Amino acid sequence: MSNSPSTVLTGIAELTTHDPERPVLSDAALVVEGSRVAWVGPTAEAPAADVRVDVGGRAVVPGFVDSHSHLVFAGDRAPEFAARMAGTPYAAGGIRTTVAATRAASDEQLTAHVARLVQEMRRQGTTTLEIKSGYGLSVHDEARSLAVARQFTEETTFLGAHVVPAEHADDPAAYVELVTGPMLEAAAPHARWVDAFCETGAFDVDQARAVLVAGAAHGLRGRLHASQLGPGPGVLLAAELGLAAVDHCTYLTDADVDALRDSGTVATLLPGVEFSTRQPYPDARRLLDAGIHVAIASDCNPGSSYTSSVPFCIALAVREMGMTPAEALHAATAGGARALGRDDVGHLTPGARADLVVLDAPSAVHLAYRPGVPLVVATLMGAEVVAGSLG
Amino acid sequence: MSNSPSTVLTGIAELTTHDPERPVLSDAALVVEGSRVAWVGPTAEAPAADVRVDVGGRAVVPGFVDSHSHLVFAGDRAPEFAARMAGTPYAAGGIRTTVAATRAASDEQLTAHVARLVQEMRRQGTTTLEIKSGYGLSVHDEARSLAVARQFTEETTFLGAHVVPAEHADDPAAYVELVTGPMLEAAAPHARWVDAFCETGAFDVDQARAVLVAGAAHGLRGRLHASQLGPGPGVLLAAELGLAAVDHCTYLTDADVDALRDSGTVATLLPGVEFSTRQPYPDARRLLDAGIHVAIASDCNPGSSYTSSVPFCIALAVREMGMTPAEALHAATAGGARALGRDDVGHLTPGARADLVVLDAPSAVHLAYRPGVPLVVATLMGAEVVAGSLG
Ligand SMILES: [Zn+2]
Ligand SMILES: [Zn+2]
Repeated sequence: MSNSPSTVLTGIAELTTHDPERPVLSDAALVVEGSRVAWVGPTAEAPAADVRVDVGGRAVVPGFVDSHSHLVFAGDRAPEFAARMAGTPYAAGGIRTTVAATRAASDEQLTAHVARLVQEMRRQGTTTLEIKSGYGLSVHDEARSLAVARQFTEETTFLGAHVVPAEHADDPAAYVELVTGPMLEAAAPHARWVDAFCETGAFDVDQARAVLVAGAAHGLRGRLHASQLGPGPGVLLAAELGLAAVDHCTYLTDADVDALRDSGTVATLLPGVEFSTRQPYPDARRLLDAGIHVAIASDCNPGSSYTSSVPFCIALAVREMGMTPAEALHAATAGGARALGRDDVGHLTPGARADLVVLDAPSAVHLAYRPGVPLVVATLMGAEVVAGSLG
Repeated sequence: MSNSPSTVLTGIAELTTHDPERPVLSDAALVVEGSRVAWVGPTAEAPAADVRVDVGGRAVVPGFVDSHSHLVFAGDRAPEFAARMAGTPYAAGGIRTTVAATRAASDEQLTAHVARLVQEMRRQGTTTLEIKSGYGLSVHDEARSLAVARQFTEETTFLGAHVVPAEHADDPAAYVELVTGPMLEAAAPHARWVDAFCETGAFDVDQARAVLVAGAAHGLRGRLHASQLGPGPGVLLAAELGLAAVDHCTYLTDADVDALRDSGTVATLLPGVEFSTRQPYPDARRLLDAGIHVAIASDCNPGSSYTSSVPFCIALAVREMGMTPAEALHAATAGGARALGRDDVGHLTPGARADLVVLDAPSAVHLAYRPGVPLVVATLMGAEVVAGSLG
């Protein structure tokens, strides 16, 4: 027997476990020991535990796994957003505006800003979070961006290949040399992943490949931004390299879909981007019907998607992308976990981390049925309440 | 001088007043005395007050005026929603399902449910709220629905003409007699407004007119549901009768637009409905460009729009209906106030009720720029904190 204190949550109207044998339980209980799930089953069969908490007929779901965010930045771009929505011209520097603000911010300022957004996410049920660099774009600023991110998550991603910064605009090839050389060298100790923005106007497929291959040589696993603004070669590259995930996937060819199915690479959809840029949404139904693993993430960033709300992304996925509420929840939990190569989160079966969300609703369907409503009553990470309360 | 204690809020990065002379102030302060706004202006010029609270560089906006909701009901229709999103058949009773559940609920159960939704709305910044009956559809159940609603707001609306209940399906004319006779008699003491659902499958224009005219004879002012599912005669009826508002307005003819401009009737748009039913959105741009008063409201109800979030509706209005962030905020505050015939709310100028929202953002643009994120730090009604905190 374990010596850790155990807690049993009872009165769970609906428990989403993502156990293939019994993915959803009604009138359920869940026992945690230490930081792990020890038991799930009907309330009537719940074993004794040191502490008993009745959640009052609410739904419990695995904590959201937000596998794509860009939280390390300074400033915001609200005027640019307002101009875009009004269809009026705006002399925006786009990502480069944020790069300038980020470089000018101190480590303390960046850390405080990330902390604020992370807490905002926890209040909305996110328990596992990937954070990318990509607004530093110099050796020093990429390394410190990742060091800041590393204080909040193990899932840090080096994205020096986000955009070519202004000072290298005349010689993108030299910038790729920098990214794959000294910048990678400085970033790698703080990162688990390497990523690139493979899109017309950013990095071409050869440049993206060079970045991913160089990252792999430094022990970084690969993920990729691709096919956001139009069809491109990035998805096939991701499948060829066996990356864990390829993100955006708004424009996919039949060959892309076939390749994703064969490689097992997760297609991560980011509907907050399409919402905030007024672009067409990706077709999740097509991917699911083809047997492809799908994740949903926020892409939280100050330019194209400044939402931190996974519940909002779930509601959009159901409204706009042809997913059922259950599929959208799966994509935002188990899908995100797969996209990060994690098997300890995204589900609530014995042995999993006790990362979970109590909803002010009898069913997880309410995440889509009640769009925009803050339904998270409590967020637990490793069995500790990190937002809201169980009381 | 007043004897009421006064409070000055300072450090307001952006204050939306809706004063035509200076609708938005930067680096502003606001003084409240008793339950009213006494002064607004630059922080540097703020007069002394008994209490001084620094809001820390946040934006302050008028409290949201949600001029259209159906909160008095029991049960929910999550399975019907999930089936609709999946495109699968569902043997749903629609509104009648909710009518059966509402009739079966006790007054205490209904009151507790409304209280929960009202508090949820306050947490999201709503300070003035209209609540309709319409799930009772008997003399007794409509009257008690309104009595329940009246505990929470003065803006109660008798909507016996929501749908013809099952027991009157064979004789809708007799049901209209009931609505305009004994049901109205029982409902009127608890209501300020009368409403009808003028749409194919609900009530025709002659029936709607009869309900509105009978209501007026009992001192109830009129509002109307019209043109939600297709063009219809309801908008012209609303304009002809000079109603305060006509709601939905998803399908409008040119004649409808002309009539609304001439009558001054507010067009209340309910984008949560289009989100949750996957219907096309109304064209707010067309209405604004024609000089028509526009409101945005939640239509919170368990069938077609179970959101209670005005911020979510603002984000939808910007994404989907061609409104700027400032226009959407105006519609959700001053527009809603006009739709309810209220001049004491929806703005923050001296004399207005001190109903206001402090946002965790430097600008109200963030309501659309950060969709789905719970940005409300504190909601004040009559200068009292009713949700969140100023601390
Ligand atoms: Zn991204
Ligand atoms: Zn309605």
